[in-house]
Amino acid sequence: MSAVPAPALPCLLVAGVGLIGGSFAAALRGAGRVGRVLGLGRGRANLERALALGIIDEVVTDPAAAAARADVVLLAVPVAQTAAVLASLRPGLRPGCLVTDGGSTKVEVIAQARAVLGEAIACFVPAHPVAGAERSGVEAARADLYAGRRVILTPLAENAAHALAQARDLWAACGARVSDMDPLRHDQVLGLVSHLPHVLAFALVDLIATDPAGAELFAFAGAGFRDFTRIAGSSPEMWRDIVASNRAPVLDGIARLRERLDALHAAIGAGDDAAVEAVFARARAARGQYLGGADPRTGPTQDS
Amino acid sequence: MSAVPAPALPCLLVAGVGLIGGSFAAALRGAGRVGRVLGLGRGRANLERALALGIIDEVVTDPAAAAARADVVLLAVPVAQTAAVLASLRPGLRPGCLVTDGGSTKVEVIAQARAVLGEAIACFVPAHPVAGAERSGVEAARADLYAGRRVILTPLAENAAHALAQARDLWAACGARVSDMDPLRHDQVLGLVSHLPHVLAFALVDLIATDPAGAELFAFAGAGFRDFTRIAGSSPEMWRDIVASNRAPVLDGIARLRERLDALHAAIGAGDDAAVEAVFARARAARGQYLGGADPRTGPTQDS
Repeated sequence: MSAVPAPALPCLLVAGVGLIGGSFAAALRGAGRVGRVLGLGRGRANLERALALGIIDEVVTDPAAAAARADVVLLAVPVAQTAAVLASLRPGLRPGCLVTDGGSTKVEVIAQARAVLGEAIACFVPAHPVAGAERSGVEAARADLYAGRRVILTPLAENAAHALAQARDLWAACGARVSDMDPLRHDQVLGLVSHLPHVLAFALVDLIATDPAGAELFAFAGAGFRDFTRIAGSSPEMWRDIVASNRAPVLDGIARLRERLDALHAAIGAGDDAAVEAVFARARAARGQYLGGADPRTGPTQDS
Repeated sequence: MSAVPAPALPCLLVAGVGLIGGSFAAALRGAGRVGRVLGLGRGRANLERALALGIIDEVVTDPAAAAARADVVLLAVPVAQTAAVLASLRPGLRPGCLVTDGGSTKVEVIAQARAVLGEAIACFVPAHPVAGAERSGVEAARADLYAGRRVILTPLAENAAHALAQARDLWAACGARVSDMDPLRHDQVLGLVSHLPHVLAFALVDLIATDPAGAELFAFAGAGFRDFTRIAGSSPEMWRDIVASNRAPVLDGIARLRERLDALHAAIGAGDDAAVEAVFARARAARGQYLGGADPRTGPTQDS
């Protein structure tokens, strides 16, 4: 009797070994779902660090040659670089190799992918893990980043059933709650609940930073301000790209919020305090209903 | 030889035994700086709870009679109730009895105090502890609420030197970093770094809550949204009063932010991504400079 060899675990190529890519690799390795992990990226020091941390097994520099060895590719680069990186991988991609991504917007990413992947689009399953941090780079990567977090897939009409099933399976193996959404709807939803708050936080902090008394203002900012503006600690380049790749929903969100601020400005100016309180009360009730009360991680944080 | 009796510790009357009032009492008791603590308030159940928790020693119901026993009074009621509560205490206030408060705005509170206190204004030292929480009521009170937090005093021209010194001393005994500010400047500063963010957070959450797809939107909101909107979990009534007592600075803040949003809307619409990134980068740099990086309490919280 001869032993049946165990099936080889898939070879994973991570293009962009930062928080998102590094955490995907670490989670899949932790779940015993990947074999060799190849890391491709622009920053040599970051890749060496990923190697030292055991998040990748090998630094690769030739995109097409690396793609030729991969069973699964995760694209985890700024969304504006999608087309360029996919084009560099394309010549090596083997038939049936799953490509998924971690981009924060989907319509634009899909358009870029369709432009360069040709028939390989059948195995490109767009994904958006709704998890991240102000911190970036592989140092911030963690095997449990996706545990309990949502990952939104925006499947394409062209997708092969096996690719879609594999993408769903791998993201679920990271611990994520996987669901599907239409790409345009994805961008509208995230435009309101993620991109708009980032724009607001950046705008408010910039308003205070450029005030002649900025230092004094920050000195008296409390824990509530710190929470409210935490997302303004995010990467300006990344968020420039996200906004640029989701212009219409972000513009719509800003316009809708401006209407609300106009209405509040009018009510406050007119002394219609009941109208002001009604907005505040509706907001508080909705937040309590959908997001629960105070976050147990942080305890009291609001200042008055 | 007969023992010299220790000087009696001051009797503290807390009018409004909630988070702010209860924490002041608990902090001073912990520091051995108060003797008997009397609690006055509208909610009998809350006062009984304060008694059971040992935060107050006695529930009192006659404001003037209670004031007549007090060496120090802390007014910790919604700012709109300042005049009414001070007027009820006034007939009993003994000469030299310090009155300080915990109101979030100061110009309006001072106007109310001047209107009802008469010569007792000499011992009314306005204070604003920049510390609080979404949670309210005495259950949320903690002896260390003010530890390391800022307390802003806005001394009055009428203030007696001993009253000012005593207010400074007691707030410092709570562990606070005490500083002085002009009342109007206080309201401008807090209007920008506290009241404006609250209005924005309430407005954004209300925008999403009243969207026909609100439930779906909240379902895909991540940790960044949760942080950004935590202050929208605050008391609508309290924040209605704060905004109403600080109309001009809040209106100015909304108008200034609207200008910034208009400029961002124009830049995003025109594809001027460099201008967008410049705002984001300035904000991130300022936040890092003044508030430090990621909050160690919470770790990664932003979603993209």
